[in-house]
Amino acid sequence: MINQVKSGVATTTMTTTAEIATFLAREFPQTKCTVEAAGNFGATVRHEVGVAEWRPGGTVAGPVLMAVADVALYVAILGEIGIVPLTVTTSLNINFLRKPSGEAAIIGVCRLLKLGRTLAVGEVSLYSEGSDQPVAHVVGTYSIPPASR
Amino acid sequence: MINQVKSGVATTTMTTTAEIATFLAREFPQTKCTVEAAGNFGATVRHEVGVAEWRPGGTVAGPVLMAVADVALYVAILGEIGIVPLTVTTSLNINFLRKPSGEAAIIGVCRLLKLGRTLAVGEVSLYSEGSDQPVAHVVGTYSIPPASR
Amino acid sequence: MINQVKSGVATTTMTTTAEIATFLAREFPQTKCTVEAAGNFGATVRHEVGVAEWRPGGTVAGPVLMAVADVALYVAILGEIGIVPLTVTTSLNINFLRKPSGEAAIIGVCRLLKLGRTLAVGEVSLYSEGSDQPVAHVVGTYSIPPASR
Amino acid sequence: MINQVKSGVATTTMTTTAEIATFLAREFPQTKCTVEAAGNFGATVRHEVGVAEWRPGGTVAGPVLMAVADVALYVAILGEIGIVPLTVTTSLNINFLRKPSGEAAIIGVCRLLKLGRTLAVGEVSLYSEGSDQPVAHVVGTYSIPPASR
Repeated sequence: MINQVKSGVATTTMTTTAEIATFLAREFPQTKCTVEAAGNFGATVRHEVGVAEWRPGGTVAGPVLMAVADVALYVAILGEIGIVPLTVTTSLNINFLRKPSGEAAIIGVCRLLKLGRTLAVGEVSLYSEGSDQPVAHVVGTYSIPPASR
Repeated sequence: MINQVKSGVATTTMTTTAEIATFLAREFPQTKCTVEAAGNFGATVRHEVGVAEWRPGGTVAGPVLMAVADVALYVAILGEIGIVPLTVTTSLNINFLRKPSGEAAIIGVCRLLKLGRTLAVGEVSLYSEGSDQPVAHVVGTYSIPPASR
Repeated sequence: MINQVKSGVATTTMTTTAEIATFLAREFPQTKCTVEAAGNFGATVRHEVGVAEWRPGGTVAGPVLMAVADVALYVAILGEIGIVPLTVTTSLNINFLRKPSGEAAIIGVCRLLKLGRTLAVGEVSLYSEGSDQPVAHVVGTYSIPPASR
Repeated sequence: MINQVKSGVATTTMTTTAEIATFLAREFPQTKCTVEAAGNFGATVRHEVGVAEWRPGGTVAGPVLMAVADVALYVAILGEIGIVPLTVTTSLNINFLRKPSGEAAIIGVCRLLKLGRTLAVGEVSLYSEGSDQPVAHVVGTYSIPPASR
């Protein structure tokens, strides 16, 4: 199924959320992110928050937010182009908007803005689970190896 | 000495590198960054790289680079305004330039571009220790609580 | 009405689209942007495209897109806080997504992500009029003078 | 000479400042930027400031600064890879640092951070002529058509 996906943008078959979750767990065993959804040029991921993620003041460390956004973008892209391991982040711009809660998981919701042959651009809104006010907003770009499309 | 520093920009006394290192170790026990130098509107920090920092392909995870840049900026600002714990990152823009080595520490070299009353802006070049080609470049902004200046 | 708005976030009275349009035309006579809508933490502005905006290849110059985004953000903020002339852009991050048409006006649609006491953050999607695929995406931050809120 | 340059990174022949200035004037007749220097992975450009560039308060409009940075990056890249008209900006991140003078030209000084096969990244410091404190700082990325390298 993946090969079909990789053969072109026009295909209607997408890599499933389960396939991506399996790939992430195998290739990135350090990540604490879980894949909640992928497809339709978007993705939702979730990151548990505990003592390892805390900053003074009962909040979540900024790099944790960046890591969640990075995974959300990656998952959204894999959902469209299939499992392409060499896809790499080329830039990431984050604005911190509100203090995340130290008591809630971080949810990252990605929407792809562009999926070109060699470059993908997406935005990610990050939330403390249970709140609808974003704690941070990210725009990231990914480079896609030419051979993979 | 810190109070003197906090009382104004005009003072010639700066918070020492040792004071900042002590503050970081106490307030951010999770960070693996060590402070190499601070002062003169800049800072150098260092982050050991081991299995926890690896990404597939023998390289270093992007969020590690962002975390090093964030600390370098923070240290550079504290070096000028003194120990002001409520200083927080408001935005961070990173461009990934080259694949960092999984075998070398990450060095972050910050230079402040602006130190205003409520906003500081700085850039950070990130290197794999021993190389002079940057692996990533960051521009970040920090919000400084008004009362602290 | 403006004084009411400036007195707090909680007020339900907003500066009207017409008031902002009048202010823009008087204070920024060089701008070619017109205000289509403002309010509800957003704004829509429009910029005619002609020979002065063209780049080789029948497209629109990048700085024109940035200028439209800047005005859209400004208008969205004024719509919430009232006419505060000292409000200034502090940063702007633009990703160019598709080639804009040289034959269509540029439409900028802004949505505020945060409206704090001293800092506002918003995103802007830019379109060639008549298309629903964005030609560029912008995230910008504005500094609001403390006295104005 | 240009063909030589385009044939690879290893060549020691660079496109001259004069060649780039001629190309810019022909292809971008609207630009007011002049090329002061190009080469050694950098460039310096200059933009006169007059009534068309003014903002209220005797300062220079933000989009003018962005346009100068964009040209500085473009010139720096052309200085390395030769005259490649299809090279296009993919992203630009600007931080406004100080109020530029309405009485001085804007000078943009670019330094390339990376010149890859398909992507170039550079930073630009912008000054009011005669001052050594930057009024803005830009990081931009350019996409280079594969065939051109």
